[in-house]
Amino acid sequence: MNGLLTDLYELTMSAGYFAAGKSAEIATFELSVRRMPPHRNFVVATGLAQAADYLLNLSFSAEEIDYLRSLRLFASSTEEFFDYLCRLRFTGDLFAVPEGTPIFAGEPVLTVRAPLIEAQVAETYLLSIIGFQTLVATKAARVVEAAAGRPVVEFGTRHAHSPEAGVLAGRAAYIGGCAGTSNTLAGFRFGIPVSGTAAHSWVMSFTDETESFRRLQQLLGPSTVYLIDSYDTIEGARKAAALGEPILGVRLDSGDLDALSRQVRGILDEAGLTRARIMATGDLNEYRIRDLVAGGAPIDSFGVGTELATSGDAPSLCDIYKMVELSSGGVKRYTAKFSAEKVTVPGAKQILRFRDHDEVAGAWECPLTSGKAAAVEALLRPVIYDGELVEPLPDVHTARERAAKCLRNLPPACRHLTDAEPYRVEWSEELTRLSEQVREQVAE
Amino acid sequence: MNGLLTDLYELTMSAGYFAAGKSAEIATFELSVRRMPPHRNFVVATGLAQAADYLLNLSFSAEEIDYLRSLRLFASSTEEFFDYLCRLRFTGDLFAVPEGTPIFAGEPVLTVRAPLIEAQVAETYLLSIIGFQTLVATKAARVVEAAAGRPVVEFGTRHAHSPEAGVLAGRAAYIGGCAGTSNTLAGFRFGIPVSGTAAHSWVMSFTDETESFRRLQQLLGPSTVYLIDSYDTIEGARKAAALGEPILGVRLDSGDLDALSRQVRGILDEAGLTRARIMATGDLNEYRIRDLVAGGAPIDSFGVGTELATSGDAPSLCDIYKMVELSSGGVKRYTAKFSAEKVTVPGAKQILRFRDHDEVAGAWECPLTSGKAAAVEALLRPVIYDGELVEPLPDVHTARERAAKCLRNLPPACRHLTDAEPYRVEWSEELTRLSEQVREQVAE
Repeated sequence: MNGLLTDLYELTMSAGYFAAGKSAEIATFELSVRRMPPHRNFVVATGLAQAADYLLNLSFSAEEIDYLRSLRLFASSTEEFFDYLCRLRFTGDLFAVPEGTPIFAGEPVLTVRAPLIEAQVAETYLLSIIGFQTLVATKAARVVEAAAGRPVVEFGTRHAHSPEAGVLAGRAAYIGGCAGTSNTLAGFRFGIPVSGTAAHSWVMSFTDETESFRRLQQLLGPSTVYLIDSYDTIEGARKAAALGEPILGVRLDSGDLDALSRQVRGILDEAGLTRARIMATGDLNEYRIRDLVAGGAPIDSFGVGTELATSGDAPSLCDIYKMVELSSGGVKRYTAKFSAEKVTVPGAKQILRFRDHDEVAGAWECPLTSGKAAAVEALLRPVIYDGELVEPLPDVHTARERAAKCLRNLPPACRHLTDAEPYRVEWSEELTRLSEQVREQVAE
Repeated sequence: MNGLLTDLYELTMSAGYFAAGKSAEIATFELSVRRMPPHRNFVVATGLAQAADYLLNLSFSAEEIDYLRSLRLFASSTEEFFDYLCRLRFTGDLFAVPEGTPIFAGEPVLTVRAPLIEAQVAETYLLSIIGFQTLVATKAARVVEAAAGRPVVEFGTRHAHSPEAGVLAGRAAYIGGCAGTSNTLAGFRFGIPVSGTAAHSWVMSFTDETESFRRLQQLLGPSTVYLIDSYDTIEGARKAAALGEPILGVRLDSGDLDALSRQVRGILDEAGLTRARIMATGDLNEYRIRDLVAGGAPIDSFGVGTELATSGDAPSLCDIYKMVELSSGGVKRYTAKFSAEKVTVPGAKQILRFRDHDEVAGAWECPLTSGKAAAVEALLRPVIYDGELVEPLPDVHTARERAAKCLRNLPPACRHLTDAEPYRVEWSEELTRLSEQVREQVAE
């Protein structure tokens, strides 16, 4: 029922493959990131759970096929093709890097091996679902790094690219290291911690700011966080302080957060509310947080919205999905494209992660031979085999722990917010040789 | 069943409103754009159909309410609140600017007037669904302006912020002026023209490029568009030309599009294929298209993907949803916030569009008095009244025509790709006076 959620040309090509008698050929496609987004030295692979769900549920309804038929796009005698689509299910294999794994330019995030049409139709969905979540998880990792131990909550659904994108942003941000999200559905669906207390409209709904605070305190007790900038932040802080315990803290959402946080800290401390926390929100990103932290602003936690849920400074990931092998009647052919500045490497691959570098090798190169035994981990693992899930996928908590652990193992410069020496990724001799061979064949 | 797709604090506040006996108060919230995105002199309001759908279907399932209960966020005795949520439906009114209408900073795109909790819960969803589609429709209008009459097709789902965002991007891009989309589901769901022929994987799936072209031609006949850059664009063009008619054209996806288009045009013309069109794709945006067109590159149509579906250079819209009025027991109070640099204007509003400027006035200021009779149009119209749709909303084709017509009526400088003198938007004296009054009251 999700079959139409793809670019039309995937279906045009599928009709062509079918007409050319190629529907039984087994294709291998790889999804990789052509280049790192600006200022990123890694990306955190995320979105596998939704990618697998998509493949496991891939199908076309009769109504959808009627629609395709109505387009009259293909030459005559395509009823057999529509019958094929009607029966289409994903019967192939999916190999993927576990969610939460940092990867680097050119490395495959996932590999699909399936009958040609099944693998082709999936391109659009897989690129989008992996690319978006990977962007947000990566951004979250940066923001969390900048916050240097202070919790960061994701707040961005209101400016996400649709409310559903907000749900996925909450998921990805959590995997990337955020402490939680404001998106309630993300909490319900994935078990992510949710948080949030009150907005300006709460304050405005009472004729008096103190009254709005008192009511919130009655409701939330020790979880109370007052938003104190509706009219005047310092006045708001005084009113909050005057109400005393119980209180969790106050939130600043505008103005000079560094200066205001110091003044507000003073007001709270003077009132004996030394344990009350100060949360800062409002157009934050990793750079502003880094500066606030470096300047010693007494801020205890951050809420990051728009910039995180849209990966504002790098709102798209250059991920690509390219055919690397095609088997017909048992004969395997390696494929690549050699367009200007858009060259791909043929052959199904494995990423061998060593302690201080990666090696991308042919999937057929056994990791236990030729010195590869020292690899810490072979990153691409079977997820779906013959159309069936191999085992339940790790949940978001496991993915988040993996991300945190893997990120700790990266060289510190790699985790910085600015461009560093690229992480060392070597390509195996066999892959290099194969690439040259395929290029020569194409040139013939 | 969409009730949880909101920020948690909307629900925390709702619990508080309920506890404070405010659930019967009637609130008016306005959604507006605080400032134009960079280099935009207008935005094209889009997303109303999905906003209205959301309100008409707003509800919480028992399972969702169980989840909220499990969070143990609120003080005791909230079972009455959960009962309230369980029965919650949108019973209020929605006024909105028709889809496809260009609007300017500060002008309300929509107004929600409803019992306080209903209006509050809707904030997150409305901001996201309107903000995203408005961004993409605006970007589309810019790209289409740059293409100066050449058709532009939206291609960006693969890099949209989730596949569903891609569907909405296809919709919004069409309203903004694109000729169609590659997103098949957008075609199915909204009746938008879809297009797309073949990718590199099609070419790679055959051992020979010419064979891949021949097969495509057999399949598509006069709709055939060859993608000719898989290995070498000029060679690809020669192979395409050698196959002769039928052909619709060729697509260039990499390299120097200006130079290549001229060479390819020559090759096609020499083969007598003077009617074959050249389509260009590959990391395009309004600026590159403007340069290609200005340079006289013989390109007949453009496909724009990532930059369009993500509004790449302005990936978020600063839209806000603020309470402007609150009525309790028949007594109306005007509300605003005065945070640093984030001031809002109290009172429900109407936008009066004159021939060469807009006036934002209080909704109560009758447009037929005091010289306002000359207004061409009052932009905010009733969409939902007492929870019921007033009349079916215009379809995407009508919205697209409206956008095209309204954009033609803007001053040319306003449609340019760079910052222009802001369009003249005046605020009525009554609103200005009201704003001062409310500020004085708050300061007391």
